[in-house]
Amino acid sequence: MATAIVLLKIDHNKVTGTAEKLLEIPDITEVYSISGRYDLLVMIKCDQIDKIESIVTDQLLKTDGIVDSETMFAFRSYDKREGGRAISVD
Amino acid sequence: MATAIVLLKIDHNKVTGTAEKLLEIPDITEVYSISGRYDLLVMIKCDQIDKIESIVTDQLLKTDGIVDSETMFAFRSYDKREGGRAISVD
Amino acid sequence: MATAIVLLKIDHNKVTGTAEKLLEIPDITEVYSISGRYDLLVMIKCDQIDKIESIVTDQLLKTDGIVDSETMFAFRSYDKREGGRAISVD
Amino acid sequence: MATAIVLLKIDHNKVTGTAEKLLEIPDITEVYSISGRYDLLVMIKCDQIDKIESIVTDQLLKTDGIVDSETMFAFRSYDKREGGRAISVD
Amino acid sequence: MATAIVLLKIDHNKVTGTAEKLLEIPDITEVYSISGRYDLLVMIKCDQIDKIESIVTDQLLKTDGIVDSETMFAFRSYDKREGGRAISVD
Amino acid sequence: MATAIVLLKIDHNKVTGTAEKLLEIPDITEVYSISGRYDLLVMIKCDQIDKIESIVTDQLLKTDGIVDSETMFAFRSYDKREGGRAISVD
Amino acid sequence: MATAIVLLKIDHNKVTGTAEKLLEIPDITEVYSISGRYDLLVMIKCDQIDKIESIVTDQLLKTDGIVDSETMFAFRSYDKREGGRAISVD
Amino acid sequence: MATAIVLLKIDHNKVTGTAEKLLEIPDITEVYSISGRYDLLVMIKCDQIDKIESIVTDQLLKTDGIVDSETMFAFRSYDKREGGRAISVD
Amino acid sequence: MATAIVLLKIDHNKVTGTAEKLLEIPDITEVYSISGRYDLLVMIKCDQIDKIESIVTDQLLKTDGIVDSETMFAFRSYDKREGGRAISVD
Amino acid sequence: MATAIVLLKIDHNKVTGTAEKLLEIPDITEVYSISGRYDLLVMIKCDQIDKIESIVTDQLLKTDGIVDSETMFAFRSYDKREGGRAISVD
Repeated sequence: MATAIVLLKIDHNKVTGTAEKLLEIPDITEVYSISGRYDLLVMIKCDQIDKIESIVTDQLLKTDGIVDSETMFAFRSYDKREGGRAISVD
Repeated sequence: MATAIVLLKIDHNKVTGTAEKLLEIPDITEVYSISGRYDLLVMIKCDQIDKIESIVTDQLLKTDGIVDSETMFAFRSYDKREGGRAISVD
Repeated sequence: MATAIVLLKIDHNKVTGTAEKLLEIPDITEVYSISGRYDLLVMIKCDQIDKIESIVTDQLLKTDGIVDSETMFAFRSYDKREGGRAISVD
Repeated sequence: MATAIVLLKIDHNKVTGTAEKLLEIPDITEVYSISGRYDLLVMIKCDQIDKIESIVTDQLLKTDGIVDSETMFAFRSYDKREGGRAISVD
Repeated sequence: MATAIVLLKIDHNKVTGTAEKLLEIPDITEVYSISGRYDLLVMIKCDQIDKIESIVTDQLLKTDGIVDSETMFAFRSYDKREGGRAISVD
Repeated sequence: MATAIVLLKIDHNKVTGTAEKLLEIPDITEVYSISGRYDLLVMIKCDQIDKIESIVTDQLLKTDGIVDSETMFAFRSYDKREGGRAISVD
Repeated sequence: MATAIVLLKIDHNKVTGTAEKLLEIPDITEVYSISGRYDLLVMIKCDQIDKIESIVTDQLLKTDGIVDSETMFAFRSYDKREGGRAISVD
Repeated sequence: MATAIVLLKIDHNKVTGTAEKLLEIPDITEVYSISGRYDLLVMIKCDQIDKIESIVTDQLLKTDGIVDSETMFAFRSYDKREGGRAISVD
Repeated sequence: MATAIVLLKIDHNKVTGTAEKLLEIPDITEVYSISGRYDLLVMIKCDQIDKIESIVTDQLLKTDGIVDSETMFAFRSYDKREGGRAISVD
Repeated sequence: MATAIVLLKIDHNKVTGTAEKLLEIPDITEVYSISGRYDLLVMIKCDQIDKIESIVTDQLLKTDGIVDSETMFAFRSYDKREGGRAISVD
């Protein structure tokens, strides 16, 4: 499962609205409103790595309300729901 | 589901070892090795908010290899696997 | 008592006005004008954690005059007025 | 009531111990373990401004476990418990 | 003598004008144009601490030309002109 | 071609030695000594995405002399040598 | 081969368009959409060092959509395709 | 009057001791313990500009307890005690 | 010879034009377009220190195209063209 | 004339010694002790670009006392002493 995590700073008046629009993007699985310097944390999980870039560039970042972003790509996931062993991102 | 996300900078020689030790901590559900300024992203999900602090302080941060950390608390989660509606962190 | 602390950078011409509007938000207990890189520090204390996000997102951040913000969630409070022992945030 | 707020980064192995030692310092009223780039937030409230510097310099910062600190002085407090009007720090 | 030091970033076209307007504010004793990331350093010295906040918020920061600011409060002054021993800020 | 770019800060006395050791790692194609806040820029190109994490974690970061690092993953490459059209990272 | 690497932050709505326009600039050999604080990484390779400045200043930075940039000059390239030994940038 | 302002981060256990040693350096006129990211602010005033460098380099920075420093040179001083008009630093 | 060095971030469309206008300011001796977070580095050398402030404030910073600046004052110059020994800035 | 500028943070006890050692390196033409976040600014001017990297890596950065560095490469120089027109770095 190709995974990326995006930290987003949102226009103060649009946090909830932006979060809900992001949730409508198919491969976005989780959206959290978080403490800290950013406002939202978005989890992207999809079957192909190259889809991540178009999800981020062509859909996520074009969502209204986004002021700044920092994208982190998950090279390797140790997701417990899949037996807890280190599984590759492929 | 009380949720927190912790970004970790790890001693360069201990990334994999630290990631696997973190996975042994009960309420840590996912550990990702990530691109960017940090090396690991850890997801904590548990039934009570107050458990998060002791998980972070008494277990996670005491794991060998951690050089620096930044903890983000999820006030609200829009986790799709639970019907896609905004659900509160309780 | 669920507690969060919010650091706020304010439009230079609106510091006092914004501070007083924030004070009108029910669960905001203290507002300080502070030295340093931020202008105001706001204490939120309420009975339920999940209310904090809506207080921050739907009320606090929508207050006129806010230029930037950084939210810190209190996992655990050692508030002396309650016997001085570490009490959980629940 | 002279008020200062101190953000503290703590040696990962000493967070709880340091928090409890800080609580023993007379004019420290609240200690929170917080999310974000720092680990603890300390509230100092005392009757005279000039006591704050010696509390910070001669007691707080000399507590074992402190790695880094950032002190914010409260010029003005809008503490609701005292009638909700802006009160001066004197 | 209550003392605060304010670092100011100024609109490039207004440095001298802003400096001279600041000098007209009663309790501002010194204004320096400085090297570094900021453009001006302002010294505030007055007889009461609580006046500092209103000087900063209601006068200094409302002066035309200010782009950004960082305020430092002097807890303790070791001013040589007053016998060189550590004197409290009261 | 899975691609990642790693910025490295090196112990001042070991820049050339570290650069040459990095070149010996199979999937590291280019190593540049660069101006700016970092000392070396390393290009990793290999046939499978999941190999990148083990190249970075188990080989690159374990090379002697590395003080700090920042890893950037290339979601999409517009490499001209392959007909100039946007090609996916697969 | 004179080499420079430019990190670019792009207007969120123009990432793909800007990347493709950059590719049309003769001496730009590779454009990557990347994870991290920047959006694009651009490789410039040309036969003369002094051409790099005009490529960056007169063409690259004038491309629509660029919000911020950080340029790194490659003093020395260890490009494997040329026998793997350290070759000078000339 | 040649003027420079130096911000100093001090070893937590040595703040008062370092401040008093600094006061013994002839052309250091004021030392403040301050709020914010630094611990001390030092004012240097002397009759010749070139003396400032040796005061900073050969005396101030060699004082025990200093962890980090940032020096600001005052190009121009608007010191009110000298008739309030902008006076040059000479 | 009084010397100051100014780092300038320039509007992307105006780098060359701004550089040439700066060169027309009498005491600006060198202007470099540079790699890194800034775009231009300007050397100011003149016979009197106090002229530097007016050169920076009243001429340099008023030049069209400047987005941000950081000024460094040279306390002491070890310029080889003058016999290589440390000479004071006077 | 190939030109590079290096900002250096120096061990507080070694500023003057380090500056004088740097001056002994042939192609280092000027060394300034400067205000700001760094302590020294070094100018390198030599006839071939590729020599700059070995000057920086093999000589400058190996000089005792250097704590941190940031290197800026001059793509283009507008040095007035050479007729004031923009000359290329070759």
